[in-house]
Amino acid sequence: MEELLKFAPRPTGAGEMFQLLRDGQPRTRADLAAITGQARSTIAARLDLLVSAGLIGPAGEANSTGGRPPATFAFRPNAKIVLAVEVGVAYAHVAVTDLAATILAETEEPLAITDGPQIVLSLIAESAKKLIALAGRSLDELASVGVGLPGPVDYLTGRPISPPIMAAWDDADVPGILQRLLGPPVLVDKDVNLMALGEHRRAWPDTADMIFVNVANNIGSGIISDGELRRGAQGAAGDIGHIPVPNAAGLLCRCGNVGCLEAIASGNAIAASLQARGLDTADIGDVVALVRSGDVAASQAVRQAGREIGTVVASCVSILNPALIVIGGVVATASEHLIAGIRESVYQSSLPRATEHLRIATSRNTSQVGILGASVMAAEHVLSPRAIDALIPMPADGR
Amino acid sequence: MEELLKFAPRPTGAGEMFQLLRDGQPRTRADLAAITGQARSTIAARLDLLVSAGLIGPAGEANSTGGRPPATFAFRPNAKIVLAVEVGVAYAHVAVTDLAATILAETEEPLAITDGPQIVLSLIAESAKKLIALAGRSLDELASVGVGLPGPVDYLTGRPISPPIMAAWDDADVPGILQRLLGPPVLVDKDVNLMALGEHRRAWPDTADMIFVNVANNIGSGIISDGELRRGAQGAAGDIGHIPVPNAAGLLCRCGNVGCLEAIASGNAIAASLQARGLDTADIGDVVALVRSGDVAASQAVRQAGREIGTVVASCVSILNPALIVIGGVVATASEHLIAGIRESVYQSSLPRATEHLRIATSRNTSQVGILGASVMAAEHVLSPRAIDALIPMPADGR
Repeated sequence: MEELLKFAPRPTGAGEMFQLLRDGQPRTRADLAAITGQARSTIAARLDLLVSAGLIGPAGEANSTGGRPPATFAFRPNAKIVLAVEVGVAYAHVAVTDLAATILAETEEPLAITDGPQIVLSLIAESAKKLIALAGRSLDELASVGVGLPGPVDYLTGRPISPPIMAAWDDADVPGILQRLLGPPVLVDKDVNLMALGEHRRAWPDTADMIFVNVANNIGSGIISDGELRRGAQGAAGDIGHIPVPNAAGLLCRCGNVGCLEAIASGNAIAASLQARGLDTADIGDVVALVRSGDVAASQAVRQAGREIGTVVASCVSILNPALIVIGGVVATASEHLIAGIRESVYQSSLPRATEHLRIATSRNTSQVGILGASVMAAEHVLSPRAIDALIPMPADGR
Repeated sequence: MEELLKFAPRPTGAGEMFQLLRDGQPRTRADLAAITGQARSTIAARLDLLVSAGLIGPAGEANSTGGRPPATFAFRPNAKIVLAVEVGVAYAHVAVTDLAATILAETEEPLAITDGPQIVLSLIAESAKKLIALAGRSLDELASVGVGLPGPVDYLTGRPISPPIMAAWDDADVPGILQRLLGPPVLVDKDVNLMALGEHRRAWPDTADMIFVNVANNIGSGIISDGELRRGAQGAAGDIGHIPVPNAAGLLCRCGNVGCLEAIASGNAIAASLQARGLDTADIGDVVALVRSGDVAASQAVRQAGREIGTVVASCVSILNPALIVIGGVVATASEHLIAGIRESVYQSSLPRATEHLRIATSRNTSQVGILGASVMAAEHVLSPRAIDALIPMPADGR
């Protein structure tokens, strides 16, 4: 029955046809006709539109079993550029990418997030213009802008919602400010969501259900379910840092509650607990340095933090039944102790049904996934079937 | 920009056009042309196909500002029928519905789930045939079948996965068996997922992010995220009964672990704890009767169970950021004590951001939501754009 439904001919617009080519594989007109069940004339008309918009280009000839070999067509990721920005507390990672999230030029721009959105976003826009020139492109080629912020964001409006570490940004019209400075549409999300998106599209595109857990001075997560980011009703989904854990019962969290995961297992918390035991760990960087040097106490502390994080990740596993948990952040990449502790708790306290096929892995490219995700979010927005159909007006009768 | 994208003309097939009419509201050809941006001739051609398939019918005339009033068209939910089945341990709830989940005839069929799939499903098929006749319809009008089972199901194959209380059903081809007995496509899911779906479509269709928690002898949940059920990688999403809770630390759960939510807060667990205190509560029914009679000890026990369930629901809130939690099951409907306990824990331990707009409500129709969900799942499958396009072949050029 599924076979029947899959191959039933449906009217395919330029936007939908384009999706079939987004993987970058060259295809012939006959390939596209076979996939869509549409007439060759319809396929040819749609391809003409996509080629004249520059999004699709000729990609050589296919092998032929005789006669003139048929022409193939493929996605041209270089047709436009995308600006990807990951805003941190003391710097912004700014990159110009193509439409397939390949970085063409990038920089780290020092800033103070407490200066507020006008100053910070102006700085970023200036930096972006220089990068675009450096990449040999021009501002009018910029299709869209993706921004990650270190706090909760209402995805539909792109405005931060009561962000704890950037009060001056509360309810600021980030998309409006940047669009006035740069031109194209601007999409904004919280950073850990973009890390999840970047990790998913780059490393695990075929895994429909995945959770990305970022362990830094905050602990947060991004949820991919049925292949897409799930942000929840107010964009607060994945906010696991303030779930209570048994062993943190006595510890006061900066959120005002006691017993939160972040109060016991964040980078700051690990540094503080080691400092209390006489070690010289002012911050998360010192913890990472100690762990890398093989210090036993620091390694044990990181492993114990992993166990605490694992109790919360185990709840995520029971609730969401992902196929994959990816652990990111500098602590995760410093050593295997963090992920070992997480695995220990998850496999101990989840049902066999949920862990039988569960994989827990370290992020493959933890310093880049946020910027990749910002690029992916921005590119997917302008390359969706709807956006393409808006870009390329179709005959009103739908042909 | 969203406005632009929204009104860009897209090729609209019969399947997509049909979705615009599924809400049951009558619309004129001009309404549909305005919504889709398609030419009147395209609209007319699509409508003709849908009318001849019986799915759309004339629905009288619209008001006119002068001249001949235009004809309107609307969804005809009676065009086909759907069979909805909710299998329990000792009975099956079987219903014949129309395509909009309105029940036309229903019955409760006694059975023993331990008899295994062949015997149980044959019984259900016989019962279904009688109900269809009773409703004055015929088997060849049956469009699809939806089945809820009291255990985990691989949704893609419809096969139960190691179901704890129905071992004889493990990996059984439930869709294949029922399709041979009845004819049309069969979809199968675990019962609590269908309760979530039924509750959502019937009572909260505009709430995109919702969790349905069923409190009975098991404790389970169904997750609606961005408007759709999310089943996870192996169909085990929502499996919250075995998340550990602090107060249950010493209690052995039937799953083999200690400290599971079900071991302290399920109907069985409440009955056992009251029995240990000298009350005459052999099962969940006795607990409900006592609570209904105003017994203080039973009410307190139910409220305490609510608090325990609330600690786990609070984690769900942090992870998924729903706008709504619906509590179902017989204990929830017996009194306000359960939901009061749940609210207490959730509002105490979740971040303000996640609970500011959160609503926690009791299921409006707890004994019917499972069967409604089974009907909705089955009807949505045959009324999706793809299924309609398969039913109604389109011209190969997509016109």
